[in-house]
Amino acid sequence: MHELVKCNGIKEGKNGLGIVVCEGSVAGVFTQNKFKSPSVVVTEEHIKNGFIEGIIANSGNANAFTGKQGYKDAKRMCQLLAEKLKTNTESIAVASTGVIGIQLDMEWIESRFEKVYAGLGNKEENALAFAKSIMTTDRFPKFAKYKEDFKIAGVCKGAGMIHPNMATMLAFIFTDAKFEAGELKEMLRTAVKYSFNAISVDGDTSTNDMVLLVAKGECEVSRDRFLNGLKDVCLNLAKQIARDGEGATKLIKVTIVNAKSEEEAFKGARTVVSSNLVKTAVFGNDPNWGRIIASLGYSGIDVNEELDLKLLGYRDGHKIEEVELVKNGVGLGNEGIARRVMEKSNEIEFIINLKLGNGNGYAYGCDLTYDYVRINSEYTT
Amino acid sequence: MHELVKCNGIKEGKNGLGIVVCEGSVAGVFTQNKFKSPSVVVTEEHIKNGFIEGIIANSGNANAFTGKQGYKDAKRMCQLLAEKLKTNTESIAVASTGVIGIQLDMEWIESRFEKVYAGLGNKEENALAFAKSIMTTDRFPKFAKYKEDFKIAGVCKGAGMIHPNMATMLAFIFTDAKFEAGELKEMLRTAVKYSFNAISVDGDTSTNDMVLLVAKGECEVSRDRFLNGLKDVCLNLAKQIARDGEGATKLIKVTIVNAKSEEEAFKGARTVVSSNLVKTAVFGNDPNWGRIIASLGYSGIDVNEELDLKLLGYRDGHKIEEVELVKNGVGLGNEGIARRVMEKSNEIEFIINLKLGNGNGYAYGCDLTYDYVRINSEYTT
Repeated sequence: MHELVKCNGIKEGKNGLGIVVCEGSVAGVFTQNKFKSPSVVVTEEHIKNGFIEGIIANSGNANAFTGKQGYKDAKRMCQLLAEKLKTNTESIAVASTGVIGIQLDMEWIESRFEKVYAGLGNKEENALAFAKSIMTTDRFPKFAKYKEDFKIAGVCKGAGMIHPNMATMLAFIFTDAKFEAGELKEMLRTAVKYSFNAISVDGDTSTNDMVLLVAKGECEVSRDRFLNGLKDVCLNLAKQIARDGEGATKLIKVTIVNAKSEEEAFKGARTVVSSNLVKTAVFGNDPNWGRIIASLGYSGIDVNEELDLKLLGYRDGHKIEEVELVKNGVGLGNEGIARRVMEKSNEIEFIINLKLGNGNGYAYGCDLTYDYVRINSEYTT
Repeated sequence: MHELVKCNGIKEGKNGLGIVVCEGSVAGVFTQNKFKSPSVVVTEEHIKNGFIEGIIANSGNANAFTGKQGYKDAKRMCQLLAEKLKTNTESIAVASTGVIGIQLDMEWIESRFEKVYAGLGNKEENALAFAKSIMTTDRFPKFAKYKEDFKIAGVCKGAGMIHPNMATMLAFIFTDAKFEAGELKEMLRTAVKYSFNAISVDGDTSTNDMVLLVAKGECEVSRDRFLNGLKDVCLNLAKQIARDGEGATKLIKVTIVNAKSEEEAFKGARTVVSSNLVKTAVFGNDPNWGRIIASLGYSGIDVNEELDLKLLGYRDGHKIEEVELVKNGVGLGNEGIARRVMEKSNEIEFIINLKLGNGNGYAYGCDLTYDYVRINSEYTT
């Protein structure tokens, strides 16, 4: 990221402020929540002409459910950066994450702005400072990059159990490639479908979710090659979010193959990975595949009782073992082996073969743990 | 219940077997899960002619995802009771709850059948034995009754967080009233809509959910009066299920008034009460109403930023206090008072006034606690 843009950020307790200076064409994908944060509303307005020069973001307060004052404050945040960059307010995007229903502390934001702006740079430490400035319950900053003769780099925040928990997800992706805003938007939508939407559920989004893609336009690349790279960066970031589930100990991937359609495969996988009972079973190293069957049965997709189901355990990205649990609809009694594989793994994949068609899809999630409850019952209003 | 039917049951460790002898017209509402238990399939077949003479139920094993053998076993369970009652197998309903994907232990069931049958009776202790025989993670047996010049009595099992957890819900309701199966079905559907469906979500059901209503036909009652009583019994049972959430410490009710329609009000309330973030906030006595706003925003219903939101705390059914949190879309800063009310309450109600129309609805749920995680990560395959 630091090779592509100048950025900086600070975090003081729960409050954070981050700035990115990034001139280029822009596309965004935004939350479908009906209580959209004014920060989202303002950014949607500002990127309409397909061009921005900078991004300003804050954490600790979502500026959501804050009405007209919230809108004014989001505008004011853009104005702060616009004045420095000697451009108009409409050339700046704004993002927020944090508590809902409380007006932004604009005094804090304005008083820290100069310091953050003065520290802008394109060193690794600047990117890290920005990434940290937008974190809330995240346990680690999240970066991804892709490099060929063109570059794509992204940063995001979001702690795991996006569904069903609507913890806000923000992602900012930058490239030196050259595309018009319309092309960017179409490619971003595709990449999001196979990444961020495979950890979330349509419509089941926070008030503030936002993915922005800014293209500096220095480098000609074919659409296919760029989309490939963009998908890679988005999936990498999405998996980091899934892995950083609040209190999570294990990444869970559910893969469905040979569903009636790709759409059904993705939908079924999202339903299974979102089941609290599946999540707690994984936490307990319990290969309780009945819970997978039950959640698949209410996912709304076409199913087949003659399905195959297997479990794969990974440790730090390396496959440990593969265990067949169900073959042609019959349980194989391999729960004992599966349990031992689960105990050694920090990533569990369930592969369900529905034998109905050619649709393949997947979804990422994480286990549900004591720490999830602790974090979310203590996280303050 | 014991005044209306003869029943009995036993529970040995995880395994339970229960019998009810109840001759009458019958109606049922069943799970929409695509992996229906053969027990559900058999009961749907058997009640088609609108009449049954008995119910046999087991716990510890859901007889789900058990294929042809599962179907045979469900039939065999019916046959066991039919032979005793000197009737045909088709006059018996069967229900199961427990682990998915393992064949029934028919040896255990057959070997315990005589003992349970021999103990049939219409004392309170028989009803209690039946209620206990169908329990799984339930912490207490669940009964409800309604008495005027006619009687309705019901028993159910189910531990709370039905949505999003699909813990199986079984309910058996009996009456001395006289109605034909068609009338019963229509009234049962209505009563379920305002009770069991207000703790669950359409389509988000276990492999085994079942509500049966049996009318002995001894007593003429008007439809309206009977429906009133039936709704009362069903809501009473549903609230007990919600309160008995796995590991729960507090019952949560979400009420939405003045939504665009009744359907939207119920849908919005179910979405809010199902949010893991709302559930954990209630566990932490945190009046984090931003989470309510966010979940309402993704519920899919029409919303209004100028809404009112208040919190009511109850202790053992008695109202402690009512705290306004949001008025005309503006937070009132009453979180401190609200927290103290929450600390003293074991039932929390959120009332949301959307000011959009005349639709009112509600949903019941419970908080999400450490014990929920413990129970569901340790509950065995």
